[in-house]
Amino acid sequence: MIIDCHGHYTTAPPALESWRDRQLAGIADGNRTLPTPAPQITDDQLRETIEKGQLKIQQARGSDVTIFSPRAAGMAHHVGNQKTSEDWSRVCNDLIYRVSEMFPKNFIGVCQLPQSPGVDPRNCIPELERCVNELGFVGCNLNPDPSGGWWKEPPLTDKWWYPLYEKMAELDVPAMIHVSSSCNPCFHATGAHYINGDTTAFMQLIQGNLFKDFPTLKFIIPHGGGAVPFHWGRYRGLAQMLKKPLLTEHLLKNVYFDTCVYHQPGINLLAEVIPVDNILFASEMIGAVQGIDPETGNEYDDTKRYIDKLAVSEEDKRKIFELNARKVYGRLDAQLKKRGLI
Amino acid sequence: MIIDCHGHYTTAPPALESWRDRQLAGIADGNRTLPTPAPQITDDQLRETIEKGQLKIQQARGSDVTIFSPRAAGMAHHVGNQKTSEDWSRVCNDLIYRVSEMFPKNFIGVCQLPQSPGVDPRNCIPELERCVNELGFVGCNLNPDPSGGWWKEPPLTDKWWYPLYEKMAELDVPAMIHVSSSCNPCFHATGAHYINGDTTAFMQLIQGNLFKDFPTLKFIIPHGGGAVPFHWGRYRGLAQMLKKPLLTEHLLKNVYFDTCVYHQPGINLLAEVIPVDNILFASEMIGAVQGIDPETGNEYDDTKRYIDKLAVSEEDKRKIFELNARKVYGRLDAQLKKRGLI
Repeated sequence: MIIDCHGHYTTAPPALESWRDRQLAGIADGNRTLPTPAPQITDDQLRETIEKGQLKIQQARGSDVTIFSPRAAGMAHHVGNQKTSEDWSRVCNDLIYRVSEMFPKNFIGVCQLPQSPGVDPRNCIPELERCVNELGFVGCNLNPDPSGGWWKEPPLTDKWWYPLYEKMAELDVPAMIHVSSSCNPCFHATGAHYINGDTTAFMQLIQGNLFKDFPTLKFIIPHGGGAVPFHWGRYRGLAQMLKKPLLTEHLLKNVYFDTCVYHQPGINLLAEVIPVDNILFASEMIGAVQGIDPETGNEYDDTKRYIDKLAVSEEDKRKIFELNARKVYGRLDAQLKKRGLI
Repeated sequence: MIIDCHGHYTTAPPALESWRDRQLAGIADGNRTLPTPAPQITDDQLRETIEKGQLKIQQARGSDVTIFSPRAAGMAHHVGNQKTSEDWSRVCNDLIYRVSEMFPKNFIGVCQLPQSPGVDPRNCIPELERCVNELGFVGCNLNPDPSGGWWKEPPLTDKWWYPLYEKMAELDVPAMIHVSSSCNPCFHATGAHYINGDTTAFMQLIQGNLFKDFPTLKFIIPHGGGAVPFHWGRYRGLAQMLKKPLLTEHLLKNVYFDTCVYHQPGINLLAEVIPVDNILFASEMIGAVQGIDPETGNEYDDTKRYIDKLAVSEEDKRKIFELNARKVYGRLDAQLKKRGLI
């Protein structure tokens, strides 16, 4: 079985965006009536976007299940206020739930959290509980920068975040550390902010001792860990200068990297320096980088091709494609069983 | 000849830091008298720091000349105001000049610019001209984020920066794009801010068309280009989506990467994806990452060892070690000749 741990619903029907427009228009103009509690989207509309989009690509590329969450750039936690974010998260997560019920063998949910700049992350707990306990979701996306490129929240190791981590540990769900869109003109969203977010999060974790307090907490750093594997010597050296244990001890029992690196040499490096037990297959399709790589004739984000070519054993490939995800997402096996996949 | 294009004077005598302390104390307490125009540092003091520091390491590792600039984290453009930055830059650059005169065969100067948040970069032109025309410097360090981790300046492609670029083009000097210290607690300086700065700058250049306006302008992106080579497929794909030419055409006639990547697999990747003509040898010693890598028994920042092991021709190694620097730093050959090195 091939599990893609990083997929967003980037192809949602236009009614979702219209709903969001009306929600945000209501912030600008307080005289407006708020939109309906949820956008009017039929099952047929949902089915069409998935069948022509993510499902089609899954089948064409030969993966089986996608761990599926709302569009990352769409989260835009910096917009509006706590209520805006809570309403919007619920709407987005409900769509993921409907997709995961409609295509139970292909999509399993991960939720957007209703973060909001400066708001105590405790506000995310009810939605996390709802998604995990009621909707069968197996994880969440945690934005280390809800300000959208201004980086005004405390580092991920700060006690500010602890109530959320406690709940995650209790529920046995990991977080993918994933920023959203950038409203800082210095940072292109998918070309700078995303990658910087990954790099920044990992360095914050080096500086702290978070996993002493939360030994079972698990984070996935997407996009291959940002700059981290390329600079693995730098990070090992900085940990050493900071008198931290070896990274294998300090972080790698809790931190995992996905394979959203869109060329063969990058994936080769990832597998060379990061232990195979810490690598989870992912493509982030249909996502940031769409198009055919003229150097290969294949789509940039068809990452399965790169893993297939890796010079590692079949056993290691099975870890990357399946077993590591089942280990990191503690609730995944129950969902796979329920859906007749294992 | 082996030219290390990225060295900072991280070992300056303590009198420099004391001078800076008094300068900054004068901001906090307007009743204080300002420090003397320059710190009192003798030639013997300078000589000692270099002979026991950078020169010793140069000789031990077998490089010949270092392109040498003030300590990057020390620039701290976000501190004080325009005058603070101008005085501090002059003091720091003068020390570099003295080192380059004292050890003319080993160090050639690159200047710190007196940037200051929100201040028109035109204010940097007199110091750049002084350093190049009077002190024999061959380049400058340009900070894309003088706010120190808050990223409040326009992107590098904005016309805001053009007057400085015009002067750089006129003087035929390149800039290394190098942030300084971070006052944003989210960003560890050398573990996040530096690498993010590199990644961010490269993506800004992809988004713009700067080199159409400045076809001879040259930038060096340090630290191996941040995350860029590891994600070379992503950047090629994003350029394609933005309808830009191939990166080889769009940027690589003007943008170069140094080799401050502190492990063999990273350097291997760099040389695999970035054309050899765009790679400049550098170590940034004595710098961010000090210590012995337990996996190799060698110092992390002894990057010459990694280049030595690269599977490229001797001709290509000579480009990396020497010829590319002589091409990118338009005034370098004149300095090398003057010093009897070529």
